[in-house]
Amino acid sequence: MNKGVIGFIGLGIMGMPMAGHLLKGGYTVKAYDLQPANVERAIIQGAVGCKSISEAVSTAAIVISMVPDSPDVEKVYLGEGGVLSAVKPGTLLIDMSSISPVMAKRVAEAAAQTNCPMLDAPVSGGEVGAREARLSIMVGGEAALYERALPVFSLLGKATLCGPSGSGQVVKACNQIQVALNLIGMSEALVLGAKAGVDPEIIIQVLSAGYAQTRVMDVRGPRILKGDYTPGFRSRFHYKDLNIIRETARAYGASLPASALAHELYSAMLANGWGDLDHSAVVKVIEQLSNCELPVKA
Amino acid sequence: MNKGVIGFIGLGIMGMPMAGHLLKGGYTVKAYDLQPANVERAIIQGAVGCKSISEAVSTAAIVISMVPDSPDVEKVYLGEGGVLSAVKPGTLLIDMSSISPVMAKRVAEAAAQTNCPMLDAPVSGGEVGAREARLSIMVGGEAALYERALPVFSLLGKATLCGPSGSGQVVKACNQIQVALNLIGMSEALVLGAKAGVDPEIIIQVLSAGYAQTRVMDVRGPRILKGDYTPGFRSRFHYKDLNIIRETARAYGASLPASALAHELYSAMLANGWGDLDHSAVVKVIEQLSNCELPVKA
Repeated sequence: MNKGVIGFIGLGIMGMPMAGHLLKGGYTVKAYDLQPANVERAIIQGAVGCKSISEAVSTAAIVISMVPDSPDVEKVYLGEGGVLSAVKPGTLLIDMSSISPVMAKRVAEAAAQTNCPMLDAPVSGGEVGAREARLSIMVGGEAALYERALPVFSLLGKATLCGPSGSGQVVKACNQIQVALNLIGMSEALVLGAKAGVDPEIIIQVLSAGYAQTRVMDVRGPRILKGDYTPGFRSRFHYKDLNIIRETARAYGASLPASALAHELYSAMLANGWGDLDHSAVVKVIEQLSNCELPVKA
Repeated sequence: MNKGVIGFIGLGIMGMPMAGHLLKGGYTVKAYDLQPANVERAIIQGAVGCKSISEAVSTAAIVISMVPDSPDVEKVYLGEGGVLSAVKPGTLLIDMSSISPVMAKRVAEAAAQTNCPMLDAPVSGGEVGAREARLSIMVGGEAALYERALPVFSLLGKATLCGPSGSGQVVKACNQIQVALNLIGMSEALVLGAKAGVDPEIIIQVLSAGYAQTRVMDVRGPRILKGDYTPGFRSRFHYKDLNIIRETARAYGASLPASALAHELYSAMLANGWGDLDHSAVVKVIEQLSNCELPVKA
């Protein structure tokens, strides 16, 4: 049974598997990406390939976007030939990109002007979560719209309504603060231990079993011990999220010294060419600062 | 069956219940504290009250110390009338205080000179862990000594041998880095959310269910939502541990920028008179910086 047309914009490492789940879930997906090769791959999955945003969204009941950053969302929705210039009134717009809450609200307000309701619905869970349809979806907007979008969200993971427009992006920013500081805490613990001659495996073992436990240590601790920084979630994306966090803090008047420091440490990752390593590789920055290398086991 | 004499020095909020577990476990406990009132309370529990360190340790097979900080341990063991001046050769010395690894090694070396083997064995788990005999005990020293001490440790919680002398203190320091940064991450997430108008309960709910999860959030998140900062683990003790962490980092040549920041934020807690609140109250420093108050539910 066909459930209707979804216009899907942005077929990257996150968007492509998400579009696949919507296709398997019975939707017609009209797919657009800046890179024609990505559109071709979506066609192979069963999507209708589109050459423009307007082609992808003009007959859609729902539009979903999954693009890298705030300026991309601005361009996709508000730019020339963008979503708002092509979409039918009443179409439900869902931006699932991780962007600034301020931009999310701005775009939602512009959408309301053209009689399109909009939700911000950024996700966490990374590439694995997208492939396995186990994303955590943080939704900002009206409750009735959230209910309308639930059948779509349920094909992609688990959704939570966080509050009015922009709130999904705020909670995503909060999530990324906590994850970054959990990773940096683990990094400084491991480096202090290494400098003092303690086996990093003991540190992970003891900390994991007690009050210091974190999910990121459960998942990534054993891989750090092997020197394995395969993403997961790439450092350059966490750096981007930390940019958003700082912008958001500035916009709302929050002073967040540890997040500011995290931003600088992830900036060092990019400066060192480590942007495509998993974000747990921030330990390499602490190793560098301390002129030490964690001992690695095969 | 009497298992022998333990000289126990330091009957504070941690030491008192620990001494109680040793008494219940069949040891004779000869108890000393700087405050006579604490010795009186230990006598009520069944201990032999002592008026000096030398009285407490001179007939002991094992000496355990649980005192506030590095200078206290130095004085208890190396000072005039201290443990090393009064103890029988061969007595097993176990310092369970949380102190600098450098001091732990120094005292152990001095103990070796007087033919007493020594372990450093700091704990995590706080007042509740001490009362419920569920401490995590991080042990530094020789494996044979660790085995010899296990019957005692098993009455207090779960022990892990972390490496040679000083390693227990190193792992404790690592643990306190991770816990501090987990708490600060939660604090900055909650304050950013509050400033942006998102319900803190939603933030705790979403973050706890995903990759951002931490044990401290599981335990303390719901209490922060109620404005409940009853310790748990007092901020002034975490500040003390952060002092140790910075000293240790300096001694071993580790550069730990986030731990240094954590140290300053806990310093602000003491400056504001919040040292006896639970260490999760570091959120109050972030609230203060951001001129905001988290909404509190009854």
